[in-house]
Amino acid sequence: MEGQGRMATPSTGRTPAPSAERLHQDWDELSRFADPDLDGWTRTVFSEAYQASREFIRGRMEDAGLSVTVDAAGNLVGRLAGRAPGAPALMTGSHTDTVRSGGRFDGVVGVLGAIEVVRALREAGISLQRDLIVVDFFGEETNEFGLGCLGSRALAGDLGPAHFDRTDPTGTHLGQRYTGSGLDPDRAMTADWGRREPIHRYVELHVEQGPVLEERGSEIGVVTAIAGIERLLARFAGRQDHAGTMPMGDRRDALVAASEAVLAIRREGCGAPVYGVATTSRVDSQPGSPNVVPGSTSLYAELRSIDPDWLSSAKQRLAQEISAKAAEYGVAAEIEWRHDNDVVPADPDIQDVVAATADELGLTWEAQPSGATHDAAHIARLCPAGMVFVPSQAGRSHCPEEFTSTEHIEKGVRVLASTLVALDPL
Amino acid sequence: MEGQGRMATPSTGRTPAPSAERLHQDWDELSRFADPDLDGWTRTVFSEAYQASREFIRGRMEDAGLSVTVDAAGNLVGRLAGRAPGAPALMTGSHTDTVRSGGRFDGVVGVLGAIEVVRALREAGISLQRDLIVVDFFGEETNEFGLGCLGSRALAGDLGPAHFDRTDPTGTHLGQRYTGSGLDPDRAMTADWGRREPIHRYVELHVEQGPVLEERGSEIGVVTAIAGIERLLARFAGRQDHAGTMPMGDRRDALVAASEAVLAIRREGCGAPVYGVATTSRVDSQPGSPNVVPGSTSLYAELRSIDPDWLSSAKQRLAQEISAKAAEYGVAAEIEWRHDNDVVPADPDIQDVVAATADELGLTWEAQPSGATHDAAHIARLCPAGMVFVPSQAGRSHCPEEFTSTEHIEKGVRVLASTLVALDPL
Repeated sequence: MEGQGRMATPSTGRTPAPSAERLHQDWDELSRFADPDLDGWTRTVFSEAYQASREFIRGRMEDAGLSVTVDAAGNLVGRLAGRAPGAPALMTGSHTDTVRSGGRFDGVVGVLGAIEVVRALREAGISLQRDLIVVDFFGEETNEFGLGCLGSRALAGDLGPAHFDRTDPTGTHLGQRYTGSGLDPDRAMTADWGRREPIHRYVELHVEQGPVLEERGSEIGVVTAIAGIERLLARFAGRQDHAGTMPMGDRRDALVAASEAVLAIRREGCGAPVYGVATTSRVDSQPGSPNVVPGSTSLYAELRSIDPDWLSSAKQRLAQEISAKAAEYGVAAEIEWRHDNDVVPADPDIQDVVAATADELGLTWEAQPSGATHDAAHIARLCPAGMVFVPSQAGRSHCPEEFTSTEHIEKGVRVLASTLVALDPL
Repeated sequence: MEGQGRMATPSTGRTPAPSAERLHQDWDELSRFADPDLDGWTRTVFSEAYQASREFIRGRMEDAGLSVTVDAAGNLVGRLAGRAPGAPALMTGSHTDTVRSGGRFDGVVGVLGAIEVVRALREAGISLQRDLIVVDFFGEETNEFGLGCLGSRALAGDLGPAHFDRTDPTGTHLGQRYTGSGLDPDRAMTADWGRREPIHRYVELHVEQGPVLEERGSEIGVVTAIAGIERLLARFAGRQDHAGTMPMGDRRDALVAASEAVLAIRREGCGAPVYGVATTSRVDSQPGSPNVVPGSTSLYAELRSIDPDWLSSAKQRLAQEISAKAAEYGVAAEIEWRHDNDVVPADPDIQDVVAATADELGLTWEAQPSGATHDAAHIARLCPAGMVFVPSQAGRSHCPEEFTSTEHIEKGVRVLASTLVALDPL
């Protein structure tokens, strides 16, 4: 694709010039909102730190000249009016919540970056024809209810009663947490943006969260697709025996069967033909007592790929291999797949515009899939959507070590600004 | 060894004849003492059910004609006076506490069986020269403080301040639990039987807890040794990464390294030259979130054997193999071995007497190691000690399915009684 994309020409002769200094300052200030009791930076969705941080974001949006509202789903929505009222708007944004003990960049780049785009547009005297909508999406990170992208999901019309019935490990319903945060679940379910107004294009700036851009020395990632996710819960039923008295050959050890599955899952990921990964995150064995052969084990894993065919065939192969291997140990395996996310291809035109913009700005770029899910995956149901990545140092993410330099962020913000300008013409 | 042992000739012409009916009735009554909130039969060491059940045992001991005391370590001690006061006594016994959701036979066979021996001796008009001491040892099963054989340990002089400083998962000290049960930790530490009086021989009747006797059709197990135990705590330090964005080849997955270790541990157990088993009971990975590559993992395993050389060489081989395999995945392994129990050989003379007694009674027997630890392993520090096993159905133990027929128990009690008679002469 390199060099073959459509050229992105701003509608004025001037180019928006984001300020690294302002970005740096915003980062410093936002980073102060974090749970003091945990390592790194923690602003989980229903926390006080998150609530306080969004007041800060709202202030920054207003300072940049956006009219700000909070929608029924908790999304913080800033609007910069364009010259052609009624034309479908451009939308950009991301999220400012974090995982527990997370970092300062995941999501934040797309929100503070978008606010800087607005400031840079105004400074450059560029006024768009379309309204530009900047969204700080509510609760993107997967929470203790096993659900992420709360705000973008609602906006895409995909938040329903079953979601609010989910419970966390303490038995609290998601709906109760909404109410406790001043949100009405019934109203949140009606926040579908498609009912309100059409959106022209959505572009999201984000950190890569992987090592590829840094390894290849590229400044910009042009996202080709957001990976689909299939989650696996495998339950192994063997037989609980005394670990001192049951001879090795007579055992039906559920943890041994699960360990074979962990290795099979890894091999499947290593053999993926295009982008594909396979991860076991957890193996719980019962009873877990030092002198007892594990009688039952649960294994939690996931597959991700941008290739639906591979996802589908890998699921079949793994189900067969895990069951067959378990049977060799006299252990029964029950395999349950839960479909999490479809593969979401990025809009090809937006990919071309981002790539051409990077070329024009003299930045090196790389076409790449996103292994992580983003708000863009949901907004893609409303309009053509695309993403711009900037490098993550050593590929680290969801940890305090997560880092992207202000220099890299500033380049990403330049690409985002010019891309939005290039997508603006009616 | 079969058929070559010394013959055991009772000192009178009569043979003690235990009553299956009385045994059955005692079982029924003792089984009523159990925590009603848990499956199976639960009488953990500091529970109300255990405390109540021991009043019942005390009553049965007294009914059988024993003088009963509770020593400073919580052991229930019944004594049948012999004809030669001052001669070192014979001792038998076992325990009546259980694991959580355990069975009705582990330990109980050796206590109710010993009480029946006393009744049968009296019925047969056999009076021993030596005192016969029947002990219901306090808290044999490993408790939430990670310690078992509380009573027999104290009796052997091996219960010290470090034991009482141990804490359970709630942070309570073992010493506090003793005090709460009306026992004084300082006095419990002085319960060393060796300071009070010498013991001539100790013989313990117990269920096998494994499948070997049943598989081979043998009625009696002559225990050759109690296995030594080495416990392993392996900590794997990899790197926590986003499971969607970190390519397979760049990962340092601590759970994959631990899974290889589980399989290596199993292989080591399968390759043991004589009796040896190797078991991983638990693998904990952090952080355990579905979208995160595990950065650190802890693995809990143990080796058991009656061959100290194999235990020692297997520890070395496993440490090397686990570390080398982890290094292939870029994961550091920290290997910590904790010595739990030495190998305790059973006294050869007692083995011969048990085997000869079984022959004399027309019972089939098998020489076999004990993979489980027993009170006998501690009492062996005080005097020559041996054990008699009876079959466990399907080898099940530490579970509600644990079962040994009254017929098999009654045969074991006959062997125990005749063995004690054979060991009595001054």
